[in-house]
Amino acid sequence: MVHLARTGIPEGVLFDAISETPACLPDAIQMLTACTVGNGWLKIINLGRFALSLYDKHQGNGFRVFLDPVKLEKWPEINAWFFKLKPKKEQSLENILSQIKQAGGEICGVRPVQIKPEFLKRRDKGKVVICPLCAEAYPLMDGSICIACQGNSPYLIPIYTERNAHEGKSIRLYKE
Amino acid sequence: MVHLARTGIPEGVLFDAISETPACLPDAIQMLTACTVGNGWLKIINLGRFALSLYDKHQGNGFRVFLDPVKLEKWPEINAWFFKLKPKKEQSLENILSQIKQAGGEICGVRPVQIKPEFLKRRDKGKVVICPLCAEAYPLMDGSICIACQGNSPYLIPIYTERNAHEGKSIRLYKE
Repeated sequence: MVHLARTGIPEGVLFDAISETPACLPDAIQMLTACTVGNGWLKIINLGRFALSLYDKHQGNGFRVFLDPVKLEKWPEINAWFFKLKPKKEQSLENILSQIKQAGGEICGVRPVQIKPEFLKRRDKGKVVICPLCAEAYPLMDGSICIACQGNSPYLIPIYTERNAHEGKSIRLYKE
Repeated sequence: MVHLARTGIPEGVLFDAISETPACLPDAIQMLTACTVGNGWLKIINLGRFALSLYDKHQGNGFRVFLDPVKLEKWPEINAWFFKLKPKKEQSLENILSQIKQAGGEICGVRPVQIKPEFLKRRDKGKVVICPLCAEAYPLMDGSICIACQGNSPYLIPIYTERNAHEGKSIRLYKE
């Protein structure tokens, strides 16, 4: 899929990438191109579709490659696996992999796309300040406290309690 | 930072990762551990903080490593760069990199954390169906049409129009 998208982009054009799913495709893009999540050249926009795009990072024109369900019908093992049409124990990993290798790009569609201007902008987090709750740096544009302290932390114990517990000091340390 | 978090995890324990920012840290985690976005072992939860966690993928206990602004004060070049305290042209990349190398883990804090149970669950996209607009596969749990067709597409031209234009066929092709 990466190869199909890249083929359409002229040599020397700097390109960015979009993966429309966090599953699998981001790794292929990161292994086969210079676009990574960390360098900002790969964006993961979870649209739930098994598709990716590579596009001119300045102009926004490029190519989208997607799994085409109509083409998939000719490949019953891949089709059954992808659409969960039979229980796992009735599926053969060997047959699925074999069909995936045989099918190659034949199960994909490729279309030219133009990325919306707002997706071409470089991220700029603006002013960086200290969160009065967790005492860590965060972008002020997120609000008067950081997003984690707004109730979105994935941790059971609030960070500032955690920090207090381990340092034997109150959170006021960071305000004094 | 990856090293500091990993040091606390016993040998042989399978661990997952959280990056609290899409900037830079996901690449370090992907290069230095087996956790990638694509294999699902690395989650990027954008909380705007420069921090990461590695944790037992079953039990959820692990370690969070974060940039500590108090410790950063001793390293003026890194501090000025990170908090954008002086204009770019007054910053010296050489000095910043030199201080980053010197500082190493000294500018970080490490704390034990416990991941909330809902963040430990494996993603299961449930039933996969065909979107009646773009004719691509998507998880039914996203709604009666896919997320892209709900108005979240990053592309200027709707995919189904794009497809029609190139194939000279109506979208009904995929329903016949």
